[in-house]
Amino acid sequence: MQKKAVVLLSGGLDSTTVAAIARKKGYEIYALSFRYGQRHEAEISAAGAVAKLHGISRHVIVDIDLRVFGGSALTDDIEVPKHLDGKIPEGVPITYVPARNTIFLSYALAWAEVLQCHDIFIGVNAVDYSGYPDCRPEFIQSFESMANLATVIGTESQKSISIQTPLIDMTKAEIIKTGIALGVDYGVTTSCYDPADSGEPCRQCDACLLRAQGFADAGIADPQLQKY
Amino acid sequence: MQKKAVVLLSGGLDSTTVAAIARKKGYEIYALSFRYGQRHEAEISAAGAVAKLHGISRHVIVDIDLRVFGGSALTDDIEVPKHLDGKIPEGVPITYVPARNTIFLSYALAWAEVLQCHDIFIGVNAVDYSGYPDCRPEFIQSFESMANLATVIGTESQKSISIQTPLIDMTKAEIIKTGIALGVDYGVTTSCYDPADSGEPCRQCDACLLRAQGFADAGIADPQLQKY
Repeated sequence: MQKKAVVLLSGGLDSTTVAAIARKKGYEIYALSFRYGQRHEAEISAAGAVAKLHGISRHVIVDIDLRVFGGSALTDDIEVPKHLDGKIPEGVPITYVPARNTIFLSYALAWAEVLQCHDIFIGVNAVDYSGYPDCRPEFIQSFESMANLATVIGTESQKSISIQTPLIDMTKAEIIKTGIALGVDYGVTTSCYDPADSGEPCRQCDACLLRAQGFADAGIADPQLQKY
Repeated sequence: MQKKAVVLLSGGLDSTTVAAIARKKGYEIYALSFRYGQRHEAEISAAGAVAKLHGISRHVIVDIDLRVFGGSALTDDIEVPKHLDGKIPEGVPITYVPARNTIFLSYALAWAEVLQCHDIFIGVNAVDYSGYPDCRPEFIQSFESMANLATVIGTESQKSISIQTPLIDMTKAEIIKTGIALGVDYGVTTSCYDPADSGEPCRQCDACLLRAQGFADAGIADPQLQKY
């Protein structure tokens, strides 16, 4: 029987690459996306497109309303910062959603336990990232330890829960090159925090700037931008 | 300024006692309940009644649909086990909801970070409990470590996140006596996994049996049962 993996899939560049890596490793992919009160539906559409293209066995979209707590530009009535000079400032930005990866991984853990699956993939990255605390390797290791105490599958079985982060030490350019080698179509992915209704990225938020730099460093044109 | 605490409030006996304990300790209470595809609304109504009675500053009910994953008698089309002999069998029961406390605590963590609050209270108990892995002290400690790595409040501030479990070493009878001393009205709380539409408890599920034994050991009549 093929090994199963739960893959957190936002429809962005990173998580799409992670899904391709997990598939290459021989896993049957159970993709999990969230509608979490983010400002736009472009992420969810992109996740659906990625799921169709990349042979994902099942794609579940969970509705969670983080707006009930507020506190982030991604879920609240706060402007997404634009950087007209093309530079990302230091520090944790206002686009940080409190405990978001903790919540996402908790749902992934619940699904993994129901599926009797031991591997959860998440596209966190500690190199070209936005300074969120829940993207660091020490957070992931700590979540993994907790997950093994939290569940029957983690405590009763010999094969415990593993949180896999294949991108953790890669630059954005390396991620893009890896994905291209695996046949990923980045044209269907989206990274922008604040796209137009058409889905066109703003080109000025943290996520757009990180993505643009990654494609520039990789020496590849971003196929998403060629659509506009 | 009064210290704030996020309290996970199910409307059951344990979490209601926890809210009373936190209030006695001087905290301003932010109560968090979940509508998670459980079979009945009685829990949510009870949580609302408790919030009104016990001077809670804000009560947020979050909709999360754990039915999307299935795998539990509490959220799926599986019968809640009844024990006509009044005895609870060994092992993890089918009423276990995979990763439930992990998900609940993750939401509490998100709200705590938005509120800039350092204390989260949860009514887990390692004595008279149903054998769920996510009720054990080692799980709670591990979650606390993870929470401090997951958040800006945990990593930047000197006062880190604390997961408080005042009931962890108490018997059900001790919990009840503590609550009575703090003025808790257990008549508005509910524990049953499978109540009638009227809210009347089944008296035969794990939760009813643990509750009945607790009141018997405390030498107190259960005020909830006097309503039916």
